[in-house]
Amino acid sequence: MRPDGFAFSTELRARFAETDAQGVVYHANFFIYCEVARTEYFRALVAAGVDEHAWREAGRAYDLVLAHASCDFRSSAHYDELLTIWTRVSRVGSSSFTFEYKILAGERLVGEAQTVQVAIAKDTRRPAALPDAFRQRIDAFEKRVL
Amino acid sequence: MRPDGFAFSTELRARFAETDAQGVVYHANFFIYCEVARTEYFRALVAAGVDEHAWREAGRAYDLVLAHASCDFRSSAHYDELLTIWTRVSRVGSSSFTFEYKILAGERLVGEAQTVQVAIAKDTRRPAALPDAFRQRIDAFEKRVL
Amino acid sequence: MRPDGFAFSTELRARFAETDAQGVVYHANFFIYCEVARTEYFRALVAAGVDEHAWREAGRAYDLVLAHASCDFRSSAHYDELLTIWTRVSRVGSSSFTFEYKILAGERLVGEAQTVQVAIAKDTRRPAALPDAFRQRIDAFEKRVL
Amino acid sequence: MRPDGFAFSTELRARFAETDAQGVVYHANFFIYCEVARTEYFRALVAAGVDEHAWREAGRAYDLVLAHASCDFRSSAHYDELLTIWTRVSRVGSSSFTFEYKILAGERLVGEAQTVQVAIAKDTRRPAALPDAFRQRIDAFEKRVL
Repeated sequence: MRPDGFAFSTELRARFAETDAQGVVYHANFFIYCEVARTEYFRALVAAGVDEHAWREAGRAYDLVLAHASCDFRSSAHYDELLTIWTRVSRVGSSSFTFEYKILAGERLVGEAQTVQVAIAKDTRRPAALPDAFRQRIDAFEKRVL
Repeated sequence: MRPDGFAFSTELRARFAETDAQGVVYHANFFIYCEVARTEYFRALVAAGVDEHAWREAGRAYDLVLAHASCDFRSSAHYDELLTIWTRVSRVGSSSFTFEYKILAGERLVGEAQTVQVAIAKDTRRPAALPDAFRQRIDAFEKRVL
Repeated sequence: MRPDGFAFSTELRARFAETDAQGVVYHANFFIYCEVARTEYFRALVAAGVDEHAWREAGRAYDLVLAHASCDFRSSAHYDELLTIWTRVSRVGSSSFTFEYKILAGERLVGEAQTVQVAIAKDTRRPAALPDAFRQRIDAFEKRVL
Repeated sequence: MRPDGFAFSTELRARFAETDAQGVVYHANFFIYCEVARTEYFRALVAAGVDEHAWREAGRAYDLVLAHASCDFRSSAHYDELLTIWTRVSRVGSSSFTFEYKILAGERLVGEAQTVQVAIAKDTRRPAALPDAFRQRIDAFEKRVL
């Protein structure tokens, strides 16, 4: 079941290490699931034809730093359950961008999360303008996958 | 440095296990720090003179389930840094309540977080009204410590 | 590269959450990787034709409890590196059994681990004899895959 | 209850995040508890009068890398249980040393662990001889505390 407006997804199974004494996945692990989803999102973005040279240059110039993370927990996830993390970039600002996630177990909505990433210049340690190529790349990727 | 409106705090040191390859505390661990702070908040609440019998009855009737968690990351925390997690209950609703946290490393603000806990009746698995004694207890505790 | 005597393997990618400030995967996470491998090993064992009824009966009668875990760390693993966890049951005793693991990143040996699991009867909380069917199942599985 | 041959200990409380769906502390977290104990051991070693300059020089020249970790799990630990991690250096070799740990919950033995740390020269990335001052420091510390 693809949520409206989402086109990219990653699957993973809840690990036993991620459960807690209430018998369900411990809440903070959902933020790790979102990180796994971001990694796969960027892998797909690169595979979709990003300019490798520009991408590596950007990686040398900026760190991506998490400025915000939030999650609404809608239902519990359990050990060994197969989870689908639907992921999209919903906003690209001048130096930051926003990811949205819907975490599903089959048809069941488990969580809805959001993270904001900021590009920090490695030399000045201050927010830095994202290159236009990056925005265009994400725009194109989001359109392509929808 | 006590933040305005906060009176209760917990201290902990960032563990090496909690750092990541950017050399700082991995963001999701801040939610675990908040959980440690909640545990200590409830311990202090009980120590401040909660009716033990009523408290245990409540524990038998309800599970506290996390419905929401969010954090704004203001600066990085590092290995072995001593962190103070200021904690308060900012809202007690009919079946849920909201915790607010300010995480400081010395004078430096590291993060500002919020969680919403819902009381779920163990028999029906549905949100259940919090006992008045619980609200009064928290009200009294927050006033006492301020 | 399949290590001698191993026939079953699981793949996973090192997550950023699993790295530490030395820039490598934090050592304790290797034990979690072994747990993921055990889960997949048992999934394969069941898929290979275990008697579902007997299996579920066993699950109702016993808990599997970890009695020992050790790991020799041979080289570092890094963020996003694809790891192969080779896994085998090297010994089935009367109430316990031993798993061995070799963790590889491509051709590079990253770690060699061992865990001992004990079957604990749910009613008495004491070690209980593993059913013969279980030993035979594992024997057959290890032979089949080799 | 001080175990024979151990003189230094660290206390911590099991966090809810560290429990699993069996209702007990997830085994891999014991290795994190040992890391917390090592940090406190070194803090005490420095406080006991290590030559700060030599110590900092050593820190610049070597990385301490974990080569081995093992744990025998003797009983379960539970949420909010106060654990004492008794810690000693049981062997100082030419380029490595061994830590031993006994983890207790009150009088109950929870786990017995061992880790081996190797000094790796930062320039060559190869094992390097530990300075004599380091061995003497640890010898003196272990004797003093016993």
